[in-house]
Amino acid sequence: MDTIGRHLVIDLWDCDPELLKRISTVQKSMVDAALEGDADIREVIFHQFEPDGVSGVVVISESHLTIHTFPEHGYASVDVYTCGNMDPHVSMRVVAERLKAGSYEMVEVIRGQRPLKVESRTPLIVENVLS
Amino acid sequence: MDTIGRHLVIDLWDCDPELLKRISTVQKSMVDAALEGDADIREVIFHQFEPDGVSGVVVISESHLTIHTFPEHGYASVDVYTCGNMDPHVSMRVVAERLKAGSYEMVEVIRGQRPLKVESRTPLIVENVLS
Repeated sequence: MDTIGRHLVIDLWDCDPELLKRISTVQKSMVDAALEGDADIREVIFHQFEPDGVSGVVVISESHLTIHTFPEHGYASVDVYTCGNMDPHVSMRVVAERLKAGSYEMVEVIRGQRPLKVESRTPLIVENVLS
Repeated sequence: MDTIGRHLVIDLWDCDPELLKRISTVQKSMVDAALEGDADIREVIFHQFEPDGVSGVVVISESHLTIHTFPEHGYASVDVYTCGNMDPHVSMRVVAERLKAGSYEMVEVIRGQRPLKVESRTPLIVENVLS
């Protein structure tokens, strides 16, 4: 099995806060995003925080999708990490549409090969902080 | 609740393949990494793939930890994403030690603020691919 994967780190902004509050809406958005991206779903787990905010994960054969919502800020942090032929951008677009994101920030990390590669999809600050 | 988070995207290489095969070892490494980083664990879910390889997630109040192992390549892709005061590097070190990683690649993404910021912790290729 090939180790190379494409990992989209996505910050969705200006989302509809009401959508971000509901675990059912958030979970369905993420599951549909996985399915529309042709993922093979293995595990689905979502957690409701009080007073609101949802965290959830969809484990797929091709890696995972995760989300954390912050309704009071209209913000959701989303990850779509895929191996193989699956295109993570398909899933990203589904989530952004379902949560009615007004804007987004995104970086794509190509991992599973040395060195890591970062592709900036929106303006990005890059800092060299070698450990 | 503050949206700002620190997300470590970590590729562990030259790990002990036997450790990467066992769901019990991988799960314990990740749960202990969360606990030693002072995380508040909410959900733990791990999945064994055939013939081998493990995927797993630890959902924490401060975001999540994930892992996917590729024993035949001695490779594990690990994410440690935290909000608040939790230091993701503590958890990263626990996982790397437990899986006996010989080397690693790592980038830190500061998210939940605009624009995204990437801090390279090991040599990194950066490419500008504005959508």
